[in-house]
Amino acid sequence: MYAYKSSEERLIELKYLLDKKRTAELSELLRRTNPVDIVEFIEDLSSEEALVVFRLLKKDDAVEVFAALDSDDKERLQQGLKEDEFRSLLRELNFDDMIDTLEEMPAAMVQRILRTADKARRDLVNKYLQFPEDSAGTLMTTEFVEVKPYMTVRQALDHIKKVGHDKVTIYTCYVTSPTKKLLGYVSLRSIVTNTKETLIGDLMYEDVISVTTTEDQEDVAYTFQKYGFTALPVVDNTNRLVGVITVDDIMWIIEQEATEDFQRIAATTPDELDYSKASPFSLAKNRIPWLMFLMISATFTSTILKSYQSVIQAVIALNMFIPILTDSGGNAGSQASTLVIRAMATNDINTKDWLKVLLKEISVGLICGLALGFVAFLKCYFFDKVDLSVSLIVALTIIGIVIMAKAVGSLLPMIAEKLGFDPAIMASPLISTILDSLSLIVYFTIAKTIIPGI
Amino acid sequence: MYAYKSSEERLIELKYLLDKKRTAELSELLRRTNPVDIVEFIEDLSSEEALVVFRLLKKDDAVEVFAALDSDDKERLQQGLKEDEFRSLLRELNFDDMIDTLEEMPAAMVQRILRTADKARRDLVNKYLQFPEDSAGTLMTTEFVEVKPYMTVRQALDHIKKVGHDKVTIYTCYVTSPTKKLLGYVSLRSIVTNTKETLIGDLMYEDVISVTTTEDQEDVAYTFQKYGFTALPVVDNTNRLVGVITVDDIMWIIEQEATEDFQRIAATTPDELDYSKASPFSLAKNRIPWLMFLMISATFTSTILKSYQSVIQAVIALNMFIPILTDSGGNAGSQASTLVIRAMATNDINTKDWLKVLLKEISVGLICGLALGFVAFLKCYFFDKVDLSVSLIVALTIIGIVIMAKAVGSLLPMIAEKLGFDPAIMASPLISTILDSLSLIVYFTIAKTIIPGI
Repeated sequence: MYAYKSSEERLIELKYLLDKKRTAELSELLRRTNPVDIVEFIEDLSSEEALVVFRLLKKDDAVEVFAALDSDDKERLQQGLKEDEFRSLLRELNFDDMIDTLEEMPAAMVQRILRTADKARRDLVNKYLQFPEDSAGTLMTTEFVEVKPYMTVRQALDHIKKVGHDKVTIYTCYVTSPTKKLLGYVSLRSIVTNTKETLIGDLMYEDVISVTTTEDQEDVAYTFQKYGFTALPVVDNTNRLVGVITVDDIMWIIEQEATEDFQRIAATTPDELDYSKASPFSLAKNRIPWLMFLMISATFTSTILKSYQSVIQAVIALNMFIPILTDSGGNAGSQASTLVIRAMATNDINTKDWLKVLLKEISVGLICGLALGFVAFLKCYFFDKVDLSVSLIVALTIIGIVIMAKAVGSLLPMIAEKLGFDPAIMASPLISTILDSLSLIVYFTIAKTIIPGI
Repeated sequence: MYAYKSSEERLIELKYLLDKKRTAELSELLRRTNPVDIVEFIEDLSSEEALVVFRLLKKDDAVEVFAALDSDDKERLQQGLKEDEFRSLLRELNFDDMIDTLEEMPAAMVQRILRTADKARRDLVNKYLQFPEDSAGTLMTTEFVEVKPYMTVRQALDHIKKVGHDKVTIYTCYVTSPTKKLLGYVSLRSIVTNTKETLIGDLMYEDVISVTTTEDQEDVAYTFQKYGFTALPVVDNTNRLVGVITVDDIMWIIEQEATEDFQRIAATTPDELDYSKASPFSLAKNRIPWLMFLMISATFTSTILKSYQSVIQAVIALNMFIPILTDSGGNAGSQASTLVIRAMATNDINTKDWLKVLLKEISVGLICGLALGFVAFLKCYFFDKVDLSVSLIVALTIIGIVIMAKAVGSLLPMIAEKLGFDPAIMASPLISTILDSLSLIVYFTIAKTIIPGI
């Protein structure tokens, strides 16, 4: 891919110039490099080198690069910078990037830095630091363009020209009342394609979709996707415009929410830390509780197995098929649960659809079960050459288990959701453990029916 | 959430007006409704009702609604529309939406419709229909704004004002040479915030990141995320600009790629069809091959279990712990494999990092294994009251299995990737099946060492 190759080559060139201390050329090449690539470059440097490179950046790039660094790298840089350098950097940051930076710093240092800010700004910062985690309030920026309904296109364009440099987005402008109530929005597209004397009030779209500061980021992401927006206004409880969320922040959230579900499905505690950056200890800490819980749950299966000890000793052939049966049950169940979990996460289905989903999965289970049972019978009878009765027991058990697995696998995530848990906890590992016990009960019940007296 | 409630209430109101045949009010409310919500409304209507509503829409909305409908609903509408109505609708669609519509139609009908188009357009359509599936070429639109380096800001703005109405995006304008080579881009932001006489050539950003028509959509999505773009130019092999991809299409792709990985992790064949729309038969078709494959693989475990039959009969207490051991192995392995699969999908790690990942997972395995082994020992010895030797065997086996599971679970997805398979196939179900056999071998080997002569 063009972009990758180009940025990889550039990183090598930048490193070469840095190592050779060819500062003028380095500075020149940095000017022509996308800040995203500069971030990648800085991440791999020592603290001293990082500081050298950072000080070579032009101001706009420095601000953008700093905002995009992760917290460790921010801290490294901050320690190298003089306090007034850092303070002026902080002043240049977009408001939401500044909040993110402050959130990652020790509280004492935040207080020291805020002491020099004026009261209004200090209050605003403190308010921001209190939004619930992962809410729209923590995602929004306050640097947006506000216009008034009585402005003409010419006035609006002049206004944008004056304030547009510092704003995160200027492509959607928000129309507000004197009390800051959100009246509507107008796209820069319609501003530039209309005549100079048109009133903003006539161009604005009034049926504006907005979110509130406390709304969860997952719902915000869904609204973006659904309507294909590039920006979305954030209002407080009284419909006063307080900020704007832009699509570039949302793309990461769609991915992050999916990653959290992958982590839960893998039976680990979700962690925002990237896998590559997590230490073995923190990974183990996220995994042990679930492994322990599942291991202890599995003792339930052991107990059931033990209670059928006499049946196994009577017909030892039954024992060897246990892994096939419990595995098939687990697999059939995790297919159903994972797909249902994902369909709920993407708003394709919700708990109100439970009966429809259950009936569908039972039908799927019947089709899959018959196919698997047929093959299992052939395998047992002709290949393993066990008794007809045992072959029948295995085949019938498979059919029963697969149908049961589909039903349980689809219902449990919806029950979890209904009870206020994350449905993703009802994924493969837990479902498999639950199904293990049920599968054994089905197996030995069928066995006792077909071979009476064991 | 404000948006949801509002759109739900609106749908109820629309349905009410439709049922009561209050056409004028219905038409008025439709005009004030977001096309995305109109799509939701139409999907739940009968074919006749859908046609009534569709004909009430104003032209722009009709075009947008039609483009957003799924293929079944498009077909329903198309059958109701007169051929010239449909043809004029098709002409109004954005080029990429038209291609999507044509792709879903029977080839004969496509030919009939294309017969009335001029040759240049026909050739273009045919070229588009040949881009590889899920490539940048199929995602791009040809409705973008092209400017020239010698234009002034005033001229560029006049140009945008003239052509901007029909363009998918006007917020990034692309600067091209007379031979259509991509020279750079200029944002509408810098156009409107600079003076009228500035030359586009002076404003344009030359280090433009682009993708080629054949590039995979997953890589395109990654580039969007990485740089936070809202649009990305698409070039052919000779760096000639042929189209633009916009961020609203990309948000769905990030989600769709994650959904495909969820499907693979659930051991089903990926399917673009939404769960709620898939029939039991098509769901079963996607699941049976994997279930069958895994069931047959599990017979390998059975064979191993059978070969240790004599050991089990000698110390029957060993049998009851098998589910705990195989489950713990499966769970530990699927934690590792799922997290590695996800980290590769999000470009956090790649196959070059295999040794680092392996060592990390072995460390995690050691920590988790010791914790689990300790608890398992206490449980066996004090709670189940089995022999000290059996308790020791179980505890040591757990430690060994968990370490092995982490190693196997992290390596196999990377090997799959290296061999050109999708790493997501190496998820929980397959890893668990592989680990079952290995776990039994470890278990009985340790048992034979600690209790000689069985």
